Amino acid sequence: MFNEVTPNPKRPEGTRTQNYNPGAWWQADKMKDECGVFGIYVHPGMDVDITQLTYFGLYALQHRGQESAGMAVTDGQNIKLHKGMGLVPDVFSGNVLNDLTGLASIGHVRYSTTGASEIVNAQPLVFRHRRGMLGLAHNGNITNVNVLREILYSHGAIFQSTTDSEVLVNLIAHHSQHSVESGIKKAMIDIEGAYSLVVLTTSALTSALYAVRDPHGFRPLCLGKIGETWVVASESCALDTVGATFVRDVQPGEIIRLDKDGLTSLQTQAAAKSTFCIFEYIYFARPDSTIDNFHVSTVRREMGRQLAREYQVDADLVIPIPDSGTSAARGYAEELNMPFEEGLMKNRYIGRTFIQPSQQMRDLAIRLKLNPMREVLAGKRVVMVDDSLVRGTTSKRIVKMLRDVGVKEVHLLLSSPPVIGSCYYGIDTSNRKELIAATKSVAEICQAVGADGLHYLSLEGLLSIFGECTGGFCSACFDKKYPVEIPNNAGKFSLE
Amino acid sequence: MFNEVTPNPKRPEGTRTQNYNPGAWWQADKMKDECGVFGIYVHPGMDVDITQLTYFGLYALQHRGQESAGMAVTDGQNIKLHKGMGLVPDVFSGNVLNDLTGLASIGHVRYSTTGASEIVNAQPLVFRHRRGMLGLAHNGNITNVNVLREILYSHGAIFQSTTDSEVLVNLIAHHSQHSVESGIKKAMIDIEGAYSLVVLTTSALTSALYAVRDPHGFRPLCLGKIGETWVVASESCALDTVGATFVRDVQPGEIIRLDKDGLTSLQTQAAAKSTFCIFEYIYFARPDSTIDNFHVSTVRREMGRQLAREYQVDADLVIPIPDSGTSAARGYAEELNMPFEEGLMKNRYIGRTFIQPSQQMRDLAIRLKLNPMREVLAGKRVVMVDDSLVRGTTSKRIVKMLRDVGVKEVHLLLSSPPVIGSCYYGIDTSNRKELIAATKSVAEICQAVGADGLHYLSLEGLLSIFGECTGGFCSACFDKKYPVEIPNNAGKFSLE
Amino acid sequence: MFNEVTPNPKRPEGTRTQNYNPGAWWQADKMKDECGVFGIYVHPGMDVDITQLTYFGLYALQHRGQESAGMAVTDGQNIKLHKGMGLVPDVFSGNVLNDLTGLASIGHVRYSTTGASEIVNAQPLVFRHRRGMLGLAHNGNITNVNVLREILYSHGAIFQSTTDSEVLVNLIAHHSQHSVESGIKKAMIDIEGAYSLVVLTTSALTSALYAVRDPHGFRPLCLGKIGETWVVASESCALDTVGATFVRDVQPGEIIRLDKDGLTSLQTQAAAKSTFCIFEYIYFARPDSTIDNFHVSTVRREMGRQLAREYQVDADLVIPIPDSGTSAARGYAEELNMPFEEGLMKNRYIGRTFIQPSQQMRDLAIRLKLNPMREVLAGKRVVMVDDSLVRGTTSKRIVKMLRDVGVKEVHLLLSSPPVIGSCYYGIDTSNRKELIAATKSVAEICQAVGADGLHYLSLEGLLSIFGECTGGFCSACFDKKYPVEIPNNAGKFSLE
Amino acid sequence: MFNEVTPNPKRPEGTRTQNYNPGAWWQADKMKDECGVFGIYVHPGMDVDITQLTYFGLYALQHRGQESAGMAVTDGQNIKLHKGMGLVPDVFSGNVLNDLTGLASIGHVRYSTTGASEIVNAQPLVFRHRRGMLGLAHNGNITNVNVLREILYSHGAIFQSTTDSEVLVNLIAHHSQHSVESGIKKAMIDIEGAYSLVVLTTSALTSALYAVRDPHGFRPLCLGKIGETWVVASESCALDTVGATFVRDVQPGEIIRLDKDGLTSLQTQAAAKSTFCIFEYIYFARPDSTIDNFHVSTVRREMGRQLAREYQVDADLVIPIPDSGTSAARGYAEELNMPFEEGLMKNRYIGRTFIQPSQQMRDLAIRLKLNPMREVLAGKRVVMVDDSLVRGTTSKRIVKMLRDVGVKEVHLLLSSPPVIGSCYYGIDTSNRKELIAATKSVAEICQAVGADGLHYLSLEGLLSIFGECTGGFCSACFDKKYPVEIPNNAGKFSLE
Repeated sequence: MFNEVTPNPKRPEGTRTQNYNPGAWWQADKMKDECGVFGIYVHPGMDVDITQLTYFGLYALQHRGQESAGMAVTDGQNIKLHKGMGLVPDVFSGNVLNDLTGLASIGHVRYSTTGASEIVNAQPLVFRHRRGMLGLAHNGNITNVNVLREILYSHGAIFQSTTDSEVLVNLIAHHSQHSVESGIKKAMIDIEGAYSLVVLTTSALTSALYAVRDPHGFRPLCLGKIGETWVVASESCALDTVGATFVRDVQPGEIIRLDKDGLTSLQTQAAAKSTFCIFEYIYFARPDSTIDNFHVSTVRREMGRQLAREYQVDADLVIPIPDSGTSAARGYAEELNMPFEEGLMKNRYIGRTFIQPSQQMRDLAIRLKLNPMREVLAGKRVVMVDDSLVRGTTSKRIVKMLRDVGVKEVHLLLSSPPVIGSCYYGIDTSNRKELIAATKSVAEICQAVGADGLHYLSLEGLLSIFGECTGGFCSACFDKKYPVEIPNNAGKFSLE
Repeated sequence: MFNEVTPNPKRPEGTRTQNYNPGAWWQADKMKDECGVFGIYVHPGMDVDITQLTYFGLYALQHRGQESAGMAVTDGQNIKLHKGMGLVPDVFSGNVLNDLTGLASIGHVRYSTTGASEIVNAQPLVFRHRRGMLGLAHNGNITNVNVLREILYSHGAIFQSTTDSEVLVNLIAHHSQHSVESGIKKAMIDIEGAYSLVVLTTSALTSALYAVRDPHGFRPLCLGKIGETWVVASESCALDTVGATFVRDVQPGEIIRLDKDGLTSLQTQAAAKSTFCIFEYIYFARPDSTIDNFHVSTVRREMGRQLAREYQVDADLVIPIPDSGTSAARGYAEELNMPFEEGLMKNRYIGRTFIQPSQQMRDLAIRLKLNPMREVLAGKRVVMVDDSLVRGTTSKRIVKMLRDVGVKEVHLLLSSPPVIGSCYYGIDTSNRKELIAATKSVAEICQAVGADGLHYLSLEGLLSIFGECTGGFCSACFDKKYPVEIPNNAGKFSLE
Repeated sequence: MFNEVTPNPKRPEGTRTQNYNPGAWWQADKMKDECGVFGIYVHPGMDVDITQLTYFGLYALQHRGQESAGMAVTDGQNIKLHKGMGLVPDVFSGNVLNDLTGLASIGHVRYSTTGASEIVNAQPLVFRHRRGMLGLAHNGNITNVNVLREILYSHGAIFQSTTDSEVLVNLIAHHSQHSVESGIKKAMIDIEGAYSLVVLTTSALTSALYAVRDPHGFRPLCLGKIGETWVVASESCALDTVGATFVRDVQPGEIIRLDKDGLTSLQTQAAAKSTFCIFEYIYFARPDSTIDNFHVSTVRREMGRQLAREYQVDADLVIPIPDSGTSAARGYAEELNMPFEEGLMKNRYIGRTFIQPSQQMRDLAIRLKLNPMREVLAGKRVVMVDDSLVRGTTSKRIVKMLRDVGVKEVHLLLSSPPVIGSCYYGIDTSNRKELIAATKSVAEICQAVGADGLHYLSLEGLLSIFGECTGGFCSACFDKKYPVEIPNNAGKFSLE
Repeated sequence: MFNEVTPNPKRPEGTRTQNYNPGAWWQADKMKDECGVFGIYVHPGMDVDITQLTYFGLYALQHRGQESAGMAVTDGQNIKLHKGMGLVPDVFSGNVLNDLTGLASIGHVRYSTTGASEIVNAQPLVFRHRRGMLGLAHNGNITNVNVLREILYSHGAIFQSTTDSEVLVNLIAHHSQHSVESGIKKAMIDIEGAYSLVVLTTSALTSALYAVRDPHGFRPLCLGKIGETWVVASESCALDTVGATFVRDVQPGEIIRLDKDGLTSLQTQAAAKSTFCIFEYIYFARPDSTIDNFHVSTVRREMGRQLAREYQVDADLVIPIPDSGTSAARGYAEELNMPFEEGLMKNRYIGRTFIQPSQQMRDLAIRLKLNPMREVLAGKRVVMVDDSLVRGTTSKRIVKMLRDVGVKEVHLLLSSPPVIGSCYYGIDTSNRKELIAATKSVAEICQAVGADGLHYLSLEGLLSIFGECTGGFCSACFDKKYPVEIPNNAGKFSLE
């Protein structure tokens, strides 16, 4: 184990990891996934294998975080924890699950929003405090974490990790003079930002699982049932995978308590207007999830249709950049009745680890992931659809690759508006200066990626898809209207 | 290292591997992938990183074998070998490639056609013999291996592994009194069956790389160029990935020699009629490969179109079983102008390892891989297209899952004929008795998988796609016309 | 990583570790080693490789703890930590040390005195607190830990591990309103029990290394110098190994501060009478260490001589149980001018891990460690000397083994008094009920181990070796006179 | 797995193993251990856990080889093999032994006499040949291996490893037209050099275990019994450890066959005079073994006594270099009635792996293994005894270390004659030019190591210990009288 606890750590250097992570490479034009949470509390008397269900649930949420995974399980008295770096099947290999049994469980998959990529930052976090034991898993980002930490310092608190989640745990413990439940309520008054939490507690008296969503409802969290057993998960695809029936979304500002007596809901003060992250629909959520009554895959195809209504390109065929652009590309082609082709073949074995390519191999590396099919593309004028564009580096490589196989024209269409603002609510956008749309005009971006044309979906067009029936969105990355105040010096490593 | 050398080994039991391999689960309705080979000989003076190129090439061929991977590299005098169990990025992690440099290299990915899944059976094989060193990688299956081995035994030969490939190496050494090249030629006279080989040789005088294809041309093998540097690979997608230009297929019965003077071709006696494996087009080859001038993805879509011409089902939409049925489903929908939907969402993180699901979780396990989208499917009559059906067990689970989300009718269409015969030329079909079409009528199969209708593409329809312009196919798995005599007691473990 | 955080954990079961730890087997008649600490602060301008020196120092202290090892290093701003389960060379393998450089370092080897054997309990502990960062390594046992923890709980503290050391860290942080130094002083007023500490601190202003010894001086801690660079270590053998000159022992109640300006000493209130653990001389310390001016190996030989003065056995030769009885056996033989033989040959490759022996192999297992030499022993009357006897189980097996090779008489002599009391100051004695001398007379013990005679060194005889020149000893395990109050319910897992 | 098959490999470089092997460091003055073999054939009907017994036996023989370990087990039909790099408990960890059961077993521990340190060279070797399966483990060195290999090459043989053992296996297979037994007999006619073999065979008819010793009897091999079950082992300490009774040594030129009918012995032509390696008594064998009726530990003490008779040094005390010089030092002190002290304390945790010490730490590294006790040594004139001197580098460091703690005079006494010749019969001496005694006079060696005096035991004195009752010895390393012709160009890597 390598615990690195430093005030100002740098990202892991090439010297530390011998394998090259292609994520940074392929996904240079992508915002980074965040985290996913899962929880289950067995209805008394039901025969449910909660650790395998949690494993299944985390597997279904793997797209929300691939750096670490963990599970905390209580038998009613103790909380046992297993976590590690890597993918769910790697972390929970061998007989690990056999050692974890109990009546309630929480799980977490993580991409590092705050804190470096180290085991000490993996979740769930499990601590003992004055009222028993507590496990916590967190999706989101606390914006006033520095203020909170100073206050806790002044009370003698010490911190082992660099995550805002450890501040959350200390704050809850700090406020739990009477009960953990009152501790959670008081902590919600103090903290600002985005958080969907699952919290597992045990004490001499009882054990419970809390599902908590911030007053703005930035990040998703939903509720399902297997018979009488309650399940919570970041997305409904995890409910499907464990065989649970979707019940409803957890509401902004809601605290749900699950225990042996079933479900209790407490609605704390919600924000005047919920501001759900619209990027979940654009890129993060799994296509087969349904959030706030909108089916993600259907929304994405509709984005393609709307894009088609905004821009009609004179071309021979429509291709997606797989898999992120697939639904929108299909919608675009359908709306304009254009031919749709999978012109870029994706290597389905491409994974997270990869050797460091030598200098002369750098340009080839993109071919490991995507291979343009000359037979389909040569001599054609092509509309290539993706969901978004962050830095433009990968797009440039793909455009070049298309020209190499004889594509005559490449028109790049994005099913979202230009990304001009960093996110402070749980998504790892690049630094603002790396956001190509923050500094360049559309024409300049088009030239930078080498395309013959480039178009973004309008923000109005995007929002029009949801009609009037929704509570509202956070679209700060497109319009820099931040629903919750952001700190002067915020960023991924603000805690470090 | 666990070398298991046993005359009659059993397949690895669950007791041996703590992780459950979902392959057996998901792919119970699939024939098993075979092997892939790759080779490169650097043109003198060119600055080419052959080990990284071989790594890239094997990565592109990963679909042809996921059990082991290996690479043998010569610096002109010695041959160094690195191989291991697992996927390409796992076997070649860390600094392994840094220890391998040279002027020529061969590589192999393996799914066990003959021989158990043990490291001792991984390839390439590297030996020293009277004329120097020799490395060999093999895709295919030798049908008269038992006869050959008895002959070699009588000359005092000993064998460490259970592969037909080790028999090949001994046979070549046995015949190499004068030169390895004459040894290869003589061995080709002795051996019967399917083989696409790459052979690396070094001696005091010279080093060379041979690419060899059996007289029937059962398995693919093609030739490409990076500048003046020659490359050979099982499929053209590997040429694309290393940035090579496709030159031509290696011909049935051809021996190609690559050395410092470039390429020399020797055409040995080819079979009267080449019998290329038609299942490469149906399932094995990557969609973006082109074999014998036919683009695989295009062929598959055409299979769907032909299927549509043979059977017009009255339904609301067409969905594929991803990824194997995707091209054909699209062709079917296009031909009949029906709506096409990706109604089954595939978890793109599903991998090779998986915990052993508990009894109550068995039926859920399929959901980890595929999630049916209720929003798209509920209340619909659905045509579900796959490429083939072997045992029918997974299909049955998928049909049930569709009904669970409210599908009204499920019609299963297969873009290939019924599989009634085992393969002896390099593909791991199940035992004949496990082939559902070998013992059941189409109506019985339909009932077994619980579908409302089930149709296979006809063999005539399948062959019609290729027209007259091709040399001929082996379609023994459909019609039991075996182009090369098969032994009485052949099978995967015949050598053991 | 497997973090187990449970209120009442059990020791790891056989089901958790597939390898059998022979420690429990061989050492069933031994008290368990405790912990060792090491620290170094480089004199400015000196070129000293502190991480390699710390590695050497921990290697020399390996006998004090084999379960985990760790090192924390500061560059003046941050503290980096590396720790793991296992022996020093295993934990610090590969390039780990290359990532750790700086101006001061502390290290720890651990056998679990409190807390289960889990990575979360390994030391040093490193935390950030209001005044900077702090690393701590601890040898000893805090007796009033439960009281202290309740107080810290009431201030909102949370705990991740089950060690008393984490309580120490929280307490120091709690008291560090003004400075860490004042925090350490105040903490020393609160805590009771045994502790030799090294503490590494950094802040915006400065960094320092503190060496602290409890007022009773239960556990050893000494000070040395390499040129102008100060070194602290649990035993002087570690000073020798890093090439340092021994300067003096750290005094009971002393706080030594090492920083860029050199050494500062603060003498806090020491106990009226120091009570150094006499068992360090009997068994724990390395023979080549010198503690409080007594050379351990010389003391042990003198114990054997004193034993000879107390009991003269009529026998043919004297043999030790290696290695614990070697010095005393030699002293015994010398005093009585009897032949000394190494009649039990120790396998020098015997290690920590071992397969679980099958039932029929249980009695053989002792032979893996010790082989009696028939040529030396057959037909002889033998005096067998060991340092102490805890449970008697291994002694019984050895006596039987001696008889099997034809020994006529076996007289077991112990160079220490009967162990009748548990230790609460940092040594893992068994439960009192497992201490054979707590419930049985000497005659009964003799019968239990199957010897022809059995004698213990008297406590008076033991103490007489040290004369009048020493400050005093804790001999509570022999006389149950506990110098510091022990809690009602103390024990290894009191924190859990 | 990293198989390196190269004609002229070099020893593994520092670049390959990140950990520094202290063997090369500590043991620079030592000849290298060779190999050890073990075998057991269960008497029908007896309940014997042969794999655990083999594990125990190999553990007892660990001193004969620490680079790799392996075990081959037959159930009467198949032979299963498990082998790996490292120590016995590391290679056979986890559940490995559970997978190995049967009625006969052979095992091997290896230090590389010929062939590089790679898994492909680990033993036992297991092959299938015309008459069934065959496993072989070898201790020794074949001197005419190059001739034999050329002959086998001419018959078409191929080789995967660089060991002479693989040549042995091929030769036996080559000669086994009628039976393995006749193959072994014929092979013994062809091969020259040193070999103690255990060979496991299975065929349709029967299975058997052969124990074979070369006609000169260079290396030890002995026979024991557990009830009616036969056991063979390199040394009798392994018989003791598995609870077997010593029966007799296997005779030079003897082939012993163990099968279901018990033991059969065939005496082939033995050499006119047996030439057992005298260095086994001096250094290699375990002190508690008995070979050819001489107890090793007793012989070593007698060497010390003889040394005392040849040289009486005027000094204050005698100390050994542990552990190799301990017995002889004791004998020397006893004979002259001088005080004996363990003046150099050995760190009992010193192991095989070690970080690469930085330049400034090189001189300290010896202190990790040995710590001189100033309390015992300061101001004294010391006789330091070791068994032999090869290069003198470590001795020089130890002498310096003694002077650093105040020793007034250091006299180095060796209990064997000067080593002036390389060994070709299974021991890895250094190159002849590295043997300090091959090029320097005793006076020059004394000066080189910095001692005040240096004496070797005379060859006559050494041989006098054994009297007339023994068959004869190979003492070629002392007198260069080689009993078997050595090749012009022999050496460790002659095969590569």
